[in-house]
Amino acid sequence: VHTLAAVAPISFQRGLPAPECLPVDELAECARAAILEHGRTILNYGPAGGFAPLRERIAADYGVVAGRIFVTNGSLQALSLLAGVLVEPGARVLVEGPTYDRALHILARVGAQAVPIPVDDEGLDVEALERELSSPAAFLYTIPTFQNPSGNTTSLSRRRRLAELARERRILVLEDDPYRHVRFDGDDLPSLYELTGGEGVVHSSSFSKIVAPGIRVASLVAPEELVKKLEALAAQTYLAPSFVPQATIFEFLRRGHLDASLTRVRDALRPRRDAMLEALERELGDRAEWSRPQGGYFLWLDLRDDVDARELAPRAEAAGVAVIPGADFFPGGGAGTSSLRLAYSFVATDEIAEGVARLAAAIAAGAPRAAAV
Amino acid sequence: VHTLAAVAPISFQRGLPAPECLPVDELAECARAAILEHGRTILNYGPAGGFAPLRERIAADYGVVAGRIFVTNGSLQALSLLAGVLVEPGARVLVEGPTYDRALHILARVGAQAVPIPVDDEGLDVEALERELSSPAAFLYTIPTFQNPSGNTTSLSRRRRLAELARERRILVLEDDPYRHVRFDGDDLPSLYELTGGEGVVHSSSFSKIVAPGIRVASLVAPEELVKKLEALAAQTYLAPSFVPQATIFEFLRRGHLDASLTRVRDALRPRRDAMLEALERELGDRAEWSRPQGGYFLWLDLRDDVDARELAPRAEAAGVAVIPGADFFPGGGAGTSSLRLAYSFVATDEIAEGVARLAAAIAAGAPRAAAV
Repeated sequence: VHTLAAVAPISFQRGLPAPECLPVDELAECARAAILEHGRTILNYGPAGGFAPLRERIAADYGVVAGRIFVTNGSLQALSLLAGVLVEPGARVLVEGPTYDRALHILARVGAQAVPIPVDDEGLDVEALERELSSPAAFLYTIPTFQNPSGNTTSLSRRRRLAELARERRILVLEDDPYRHVRFDGDDLPSLYELTGGEGVVHSSSFSKIVAPGIRVASLVAPEELVKKLEALAAQTYLAPSFVPQATIFEFLRRGHLDASLTRVRDALRPRRDAMLEALERELGDRAEWSRPQGGYFLWLDLRDDVDARELAPRAEAAGVAVIPGADFFPGGGAGTSSLRLAYSFVATDEIAEGVARLAAAIAAGAPRAAAV
Repeated sequence: VHTLAAVAPISFQRGLPAPECLPVDELAECARAAILEHGRTILNYGPAGGFAPLRERIAADYGVVAGRIFVTNGSLQALSLLAGVLVEPGARVLVEGPTYDRALHILARVGAQAVPIPVDDEGLDVEALERELSSPAAFLYTIPTFQNPSGNTTSLSRRRRLAELARERRILVLEDDPYRHVRFDGDDLPSLYELTGGEGVVHSSSFSKIVAPGIRVASLVAPEELVKKLEALAAQTYLAPSFVPQATIFEFLRRGHLDASLTRVRDALRPRRDAMLEALERELGDRAEWSRPQGGYFLWLDLRDDVDARELAPRAEAAGVAVIPGADFFPGGGAGTSSLRLAYSFVATDEIAEGVARLAAAIAAGAPRAAAV
């Protein structure tokens, strides 16, 4: 149908929110108001742990003191600092397999040995986790809700078991939870932080997926002693975060804009998720399996074992649809060789259908010779 | 004159700009305008190297392509990333002695061996530098203008010699230059970057001292290949910088606010520098020596050799004036034991006089027993 030159590229690679999710006018007004009100504070140097009123507001949501909240330029920055504080070179860190690729890069940089625990459509395999807990580990990194990259959610019963294990085995859990409020169907599940009363769980949250990623505001709740270490490392890494974005988010919350923002995000992304599921059924119904996320940005596509996703990805890109091979989401690329991560969050619904059609064509074109003949 | 309980503390510790330096109203309007104009871009994920229009504008100032400009959340962040890219554990890095203490922390964290080169009132001792260049080093870190912490400026003749040495010995120079435009007297000097035509010099600049530090926007100009490595490390550390501050600064520049801001900063800080020099002459004229900076935030106070600055600092703080002992600015605290860094940038002029009087009293009270009797 298309010649290469005529194809406008469609990308399912990166987890960007659809443009209509972004509350441009509200943030413009909030930024102005925040600078006018707090300028003498936020335009000067300040605390490495973040803008005090925002810390206090987030602390109130968790029911903790503000000294347990650490606000950063995005949650990846927080993970970088946490890895710097918690990981000695050679230490084991338990991760999901697959997991967020950038987390794997950070863990590799600090010399951690990332140990993957399988994920299925009920989320983290807690029995496999229990086996891996027989050796010491610096922490467990988990994304229990609408996981990046699988789109899966850890079930309530597994969450309960995970919370038990964390307590019994005294393993620190880093719960990365940016997608929780981007839910399209089903009921909200309690976080691991909530199930444990916060004991032994560091909870990472972000305004990236519910307000805007480019503003780079995220937070951790952690034990006060750990927050002090993170503040010290932040001060020796970037002095202090950028306060204008944090004060802008504070004003956004104070004005009560968050609920409308959540509705806008869900309404923008739900039809995209639906469009991708429908297109997959139509184009690949008999040739692949995929996750059916109830929220978030991503789904996971398992192709037949004889498909080499690393070989497929550049061919698909040449055919006008960009995807990420599944192996990128396993430590050392050790699995996921016939899988892809697809982000449905950004592309318009009609382009999602077209993109999946292109992908299906690329898969068919590359099928083993015997099957193609 | 004061009892402890009655004394409001005065701090010469941190290099904060005076509150009246901060262009609150202008930045409020620029933030609003920038988000309204660029919201769909800057509120989403974007390039790790920074907001494209700002990169292009800075590139035009240097006369280079935008791919040589790397914009970060403040210059310390850039130094952290540079150290991560350039330093193998155990590598030597040449620094000034004294130098910026946070730079020493960053170098220590990446396993560098920081080698101090003396600084005098003509700036970096280029003969000592030449001797140290007989062994390999990852780079030279220098703050040639209104140095932190000494307040000294490297003279034109030494800059020329340094530029020659850098070329002949192929040593990479990181020129940290945030204070250049905060000049009260004397003539602007060419940067090392300018003297070398940029060959072998990475130039670090910042909007912290000329617009506002809390907005956290700084830039490097570096070879394109190095910028690519920095972008890759930034993407795996914090994904992307916060774009709202960068677009706000871009709008601030576009509206032509910078000249007024520079005038405001100089007019706010010059009388503070003067007040501190006068107070030192009055209070310590026969008991100490100090640098006489032509700009910047700091000066350096050398007390008599029998004064222990680490013992003095907490006593001075108890007496109502906070200072930083000079040893903090040498690798391993190996020198500066009778010296202090004094920041005059923040405190009001009448409080500067009072703070120096308190400091002089603390010095006198702590003089060796024989002299005090």
